[in-house]
Amino acid sequence: MGKLFFDKVTILGVGLIGGSFAMALKESGLCGLITGCGRNRENLKTAKARGIIDSFDSDPASACAGADLVFFSTPVGSFTRLGELIRPSLKKGAIVTDGGSVKGSLVYEMEKLMPGGVRYVGGHPIAGSDRSGIDASQAALFRNAKCILTPTKDTDRDALSDLSDMWTALGACVIRMSPERHDRIYAAVSHLPHLLAYALVNSVAGADPEFLAFSGQGFIDMTRLAASSGEVWRDICILNRENLLEAVSDFRRKLDFLSVCLEKADGASLETEFINAGNLREKMRETIGQD
Amino acid sequence: MGKLFFDKVTILGVGLIGGSFAMALKESGLCGLITGCGRNRENLKTAKARGIIDSFDSDPASACAGADLVFFSTPVGSFTRLGELIRPSLKKGAIVTDGGSVKGSLVYEMEKLMPGGVRYVGGHPIAGSDRSGIDASQAALFRNAKCILTPTKDTDRDALSDLSDMWTALGACVIRMSPERHDRIYAAVSHLPHLLAYALVNSVAGADPEFLAFSGQGFIDMTRLAASSGEVWRDICILNRENLLEAVSDFRRKLDFLSVCLEKADGASLETEFINAGNLREKMRETIGQD
Repeated sequence: MGKLFFDKVTILGVGLIGGSFAMALKESGLCGLITGCGRNRENLKTAKARGIIDSFDSDPASACAGADLVFFSTPVGSFTRLGELIRPSLKKGAIVTDGGSVKGSLVYEMEKLMPGGVRYVGGHPIAGSDRSGIDASQAALFRNAKCILTPTKDTDRDALSDLSDMWTALGACVIRMSPERHDRIYAAVSHLPHLLAYALVNSVAGADPEFLAFSGQGFIDMTRLAASSGEVWRDICILNRENLLEAVSDFRRKLDFLSVCLEKADGASLETEFINAGNLREKMRETIGQD
Repeated sequence: MGKLFFDKVTILGVGLIGGSFAMALKESGLCGLITGCGRNRENLKTAKARGIIDSFDSDPASACAGADLVFFSTPVGSFTRLGELIRPSLKKGAIVTDGGSVKGSLVYEMEKLMPGGVRYVGGHPIAGSDRSGIDASQAALFRNAKCILTPTKDTDRDALSDLSDMWTALGACVIRMSPERHDRIYAAVSHLPHLLAYALVNSVAGADPEFLAFSGQGFIDMTRLAASSGEVWRDICILNRENLLEAVSDFRRKLDFLSVCLEKADGASLETEFINAGNLREKMRETIGQD
């Protein structure tokens, strides 16, 4: 096996993730030419002018023709439609992967959509931001980030190994797990927090829009995720709604318990819950090594 | 009226807020000697060794004797008990204030506790942190922070004006409002977010303790508040529980609506809610000028 190198790469959706992926690939010398594809021509022009991509094509099928690596970084709700569009033009031996926040059944659907000899592997770099778009892109986005790859029993082992090597070269820490486990975990640690951030902003503004102006750093931190793209997060929440509803229900049970403590003015139980959460958060700080 | 200067200052509770207040006062040249009082003798020794306070006294009454300014920065649940203890030793003309996160009825109770000639004004610098204790203290903590003062109809206008000048000199932006309005606002923008952060950590860890290790920046931001002191937040939540329960109930209505959208796979309504929150968050970013 030769050195890992993708002669032609096509990126579907040149926003924060797609743009950063292009920049990181180039910086690492892992690719030849990169073609960008997206709905917004101005955005693609900007990406080309900045050297983030080498060419662009607004037609997904022709954009993917001859590509050795195709990377999906559009909203997850568009994956299967785009998959249908590009399948006739995919080259035998190509690797198709993605940066989507939902895996689950989407991975199996994408697998089924691939023509013979085209290898799909689901991926999810944990490197979002409340900033979106090409302007927020940066080659270093994936450095020290986790990147989840979600092989299935049908996943091509060479493609999986190439993508592991690629993400490692981009500075990420690769973790493999099943699509199902990915979706349970990220429903809890990512999709639920987004939902809470949206609900928090809307509930406080609903009580009195003036309240927002009095917020301190805590509220700012707690609502940063609410600045995320509504379209992207609509798709994620809908596609992972079963796991997300379960995470919401777990959360609500904890919140309900705190409410009951408040109603009964039961300070001791509140304190126990708070200290328990504080200890878990402290352990997480140590494990993750950042704050 | 001469230059604002407090010959003797007593700080009850030399932690993050009390320690930072001492450092900021000294740096601004607004005080003579500072006496610290607290439960933990080692902590007071450290504060003295670092020059944050000039002396310490573990007895609140004698610590406050002769003080021109007394600052409460203990957990709010201890205020009235401490108020009872110090009232016999308070000097006529002294100003008593605090940095507590709850005002409401506490302000009126504190007012009533003061002996004749001693002037109490409720205060709340919006400058907390998930780090607590003297080690996290810094003179710059209040710079560019909001500081709420909560005068009542009985508040001495000179004391209010002195404290406004003092906080302004420490770099804070002083906002005056009623104790009741303070508590409604901070139930929504501070106490509710704390409750959500505690509930979020506990619910995710409850689902599977391993999940926490997979979290990205979003979860880290959303749960930072869960590292706050359980004792401090127990007191705040209990004292402001009526407003907090209302804020929880507003929040739950928004979360329930999102759940219903998920159950119905109603992506359009989800997106509308998300975009609405995103716009509010964006406006807040512009208003507050930080992120």
